[in-house]
Amino acid sequence: MEEMYSSRLRKANKSDLAELFKLAEQPEVISFAGGFPDPRWFLDEVEEVSRDILRHKRDIALQYGPVPGLTIVREFIAHRMTEQGMPVDIRNILLTSGSLQGLDLICRVFLDPGDTVIVEAPTYLGAISTFESYEVNIVSISCDNQGLMVDELEKYLDNAYVKPKLIYVIPTFQNPSGRVLSLERRKRLIDLCSKYNIPLIEDNAYGELRFSGEDLPTLMALDNTGMVIYLGTFSKIFSPGIRLGWVAASPDIIEKLVLFKQITDQSSSSLSQLLAYEAHKRGLIDMQIKITKEGLKLKRDLTINALKKYFGSTAEWTVSEGGFYTWVQIHKDINTFELLRAAVEDYKVAYVAGPSFFPDGRGQNCIRICYSMVKEDRIEEGIKRLAEIFLGR
Amino acid sequence: MEEMYSSRLRKANKSDLAELFKLAEQPEVISFAGGFPDPRWFLDEVEEVSRDILRHKRDIALQYGPVPGLTIVREFIAHRMTEQGMPVDIRNILLTSGSLQGLDLICRVFLDPGDTVIVEAPTYLGAISTFESYEVNIVSISCDNQGLMVDELEKYLDNAYVKPKLIYVIPTFQNPSGRVLSLERRKRLIDLCSKYNIPLIEDNAYGELRFSGEDLPTLMALDNTGMVIYLGTFSKIFSPGIRLGWVAASPDIIEKLVLFKQITDQSSSSLSQLLAYEAHKRGLIDMQIKITKEGLKLKRDLTINALKKYFGSTAEWTVSEGGFYTWVQIHKDINTFELLRAAVEDYKVAYVAGPSFFPDGRGQNCIRICYSMVKEDRIEEGIKRLAEIFLGR
Repeated sequence: MEEMYSSRLRKANKSDLAELFKLAEQPEVISFAGGFPDPRWFLDEVEEVSRDILRHKRDIALQYGPVPGLTIVREFIAHRMTEQGMPVDIRNILLTSGSLQGLDLICRVFLDPGDTVIVEAPTYLGAISTFESYEVNIVSISCDNQGLMVDELEKYLDNAYVKPKLIYVIPTFQNPSGRVLSLERRKRLIDLCSKYNIPLIEDNAYGELRFSGEDLPTLMALDNTGMVIYLGTFSKIFSPGIRLGWVAASPDIIEKLVLFKQITDQSSSSLSQLLAYEAHKRGLIDMQIKITKEGLKLKRDLTINALKKYFGSTAEWTVSEGGFYTWVQIHKDINTFELLRAAVEDYKVAYVAGPSFFPDGRGQNCIRICYSMVKEDRIEEGIKRLAEIFLGR
Repeated sequence: MEEMYSSRLRKANKSDLAELFKLAEQPEVISFAGGFPDPRWFLDEVEEVSRDILRHKRDIALQYGPVPGLTIVREFIAHRMTEQGMPVDIRNILLTSGSLQGLDLICRVFLDPGDTVIVEAPTYLGAISTFESYEVNIVSISCDNQGLMVDELEKYLDNAYVKPKLIYVIPTFQNPSGRVLSLERRKRLIDLCSKYNIPLIEDNAYGELRFSGEDLPTLMALDNTGMVIYLGTFSKIFSPGIRLGWVAASPDIIEKLVLFKQITDQSSSSLSQLLAYEAHKRGLIDMQIKITKEGLKLKRDLTINALKKYFGSTAEWTVSEGGFYTWVQIHKDINTFELLRAAVEDYKVAYVAGPSFFPDGRGQNCIRICYSMVKEDRIEEGIKRLAEIFLGR
C-alpha cells in the first residue's frame, strides 16, 4: 500500500498539536500546553456584531468572496498596519485562514524538495511541521536573550554552499521563548537578507500583546527592500475560532500567493472577515487587546513568581514582556518529552516539551509554558506539579 | 529572480476564477459565470442561529477546535450521510474549509510530481488547477450523456504503462455539464477502481439538489471496498461564505488527511461548524435545500426554453435534473474563450468558456451556463445576448 502515497506523506512527522488539543480538553489537567487565548477575554459584544452582519450584510457574509479577501477588509488591515508604522495598501494584503495558512502558501510559492530554509532554534512547532511537509532542509540558528544570533546567521550565510530560500523568524514575544529580537539585530537581519536576496518571513502573532517595556518597530516597518513577508493573525487578539489571518508583502509576492490561495480554499470565510472588520470598527478589538494584555501580565507575574518559588536556581526562564509564553530550561539531565505522558496522566499538568520546537530534537531539558489559558488560581499549583516531576520535589 | 520560486509556481496556470469573481460584481452584466447560489435562498433565520451560538457557545465558537472538526459536528455529518445511504461514523469524517480544500489535502497525501490522475472531460476547473499545482499528468476521459465513458476508462487502465494514482469524478449534476453518471456505470467504475486499486474521489457538491427524476445512489453508497473518498460541502445547500465542507473516507485515509489539515489551516472555523450544525438541527438546511431546488428548477426551465428559442438547432445542450449548470455546445467554428472579453465588455453577459474545463484546451465551441445566480427575468435576455455573440443574431 505504501506506494499509493506521496513522498511528503512518508516523511511527515505527526506533530504534537493534535495530541495537545485533546489533552487541553480534560478539565482536571492544568494545561500550559496549547497557545489558546483565555476565553474570558472574548467579548460579549461579538454576538451583537454577528447579528448586525447577518441582518444587514447577509448576502456578502454568506456568499463567496474575492480570492484575496473582501475589499473593505483588506483596506482596514492595510490601514491598521499603516497606523502601526508599516505603510501598506490593499495590494499588499491577502486574507488567509489563520496565519499558518499564510506560511503554507509561502512554501508553495518558494519551496521545492531539497531546498533549505532557516529558522530560529527554538521555533514555532507548526512552522517546523509545515516546512517538513515541503521536504526541505531546515537549518536552525541559535538564539540568546536578544533573540536570533545574527552573527551566527551571517557566518552560516557567508559559508553556505546552497543559498537558503527563506528565513522564518518570530521577532517579538517569540514562540516558544517569549524573547524579543533587539533593534540592532533587526536591522542587521534585514541587511543580511537584502545582501543575500532571501525573503524574510516575520511572524507577528503576538506583537500587539506587549504588557511591559517599549515597543520595537517590526521588521516590516524597518524594511525598505520589499523582502519582508509579514504574517498577521486575529487568533490571539480577537478569536482563533474564526480562522482569520493575513499576509502583507510586496504586490508581486501577494499575486503569487493568491494563485495558490485560490486552489486551496478559494478564499477565507466572508463571515469571519466581516466579523473582524466590524469588531474593529466598533473598537472591540482594541478593547480586547487591552483586556488581554492586562490578563497576560497578571498571569506572567504569577508564573514567574511560582517558578522562583518552586524551581529557584535549578532552572532558568525567560521573563517575557508580552505574548503567551515563557521558556524554561531545567539544569538537569532530563527528557521532558518522555516525561510528558506521566505529567499529564499522573500529575495532571500539561506543557509542550522542548524537542518539539527544534527540527533536530534538541531541547530535551526544556519546556514551553503557555500561561494564557490557565486560571489565575491554578498557575502556582501547576508550576508546583512541574517541579515535582522534573525535580522530584 | 525566477530561481527564487518553486517549480510548481513556474508551472501554475492562472485560472479564470479570480477574473470571474470580478466580472460577477458588475451589476449590469448578466452573469452565467460563477457557480454562486442565489443569495435570496439564504435564510433570515441564520441571524438567530448565530446569535444563539455566540450567546450560549461563544467559548467554543471563538476558540481553536480539534483538527478534524468539532466532535458534535462530525457526528451530525456522519449521521446525515448514514441517513442518505452512506453508513459512516465520526472516524470517517474530516471537516474542511470548503470541499476544494478536501481535494487539495487528498493531493498532498497521494501525489508526487509526475504522477498521473484521471478526470472527466470536461471537469471542474478548480480541480484541474489544484491537480496542476501538484505537477501531475492529468488524463481526461470523455463523457457522453450517461456521464464518464467507463469503457474508455477501462481501455485506458488496461493499457496504461503507469498506474494512475487517483480518479476524480463528479457523478451527479456534474460541473460543468449537469450530467448524471448512470447506475450501471457507477457500479462498473467502482469495480474498475477496486480491480486496479486506485482511490476514487467522488465530488458530490450538487447531489442533494435534484429537482426532477429519481435519485441514484452515490459512489460512496455503492462502494464496499473503502476506495471511495467523498467530498461534501455546505456551499451549495447553505452558505459558501462560511467555507465549510468535509471529506468522508476510510479512517486510515482520514488520519493521513488530518496530518496535512493540521499544518495548512489547523482546523476549519469553529463558528462556521457550529452555524452549519445548529442550522441543520433546526431544520433550516433542509428548508434551504427545498427552496433552492424549487428556484433551480424554475431557472433551468427558463434557461432551456430560451436556448430553444434563440439557439434552436444551431447548438445542443444538456437538460440537467439538478444542480447549477447546463453545458452548451455550439455547432459552429467559434472560440468561446476568445469571445469572452467581448461578451462581457460589449454584450454585458458572462459565462465560462469551454476550454477552462479541459486540461488540454478542448471545448472551444462550448460554454458552461450557470443559471443559479441570474434573476428569473434576466435569463432570457442573457441567452439572447449569447446568441447574438455566438451566432451573430
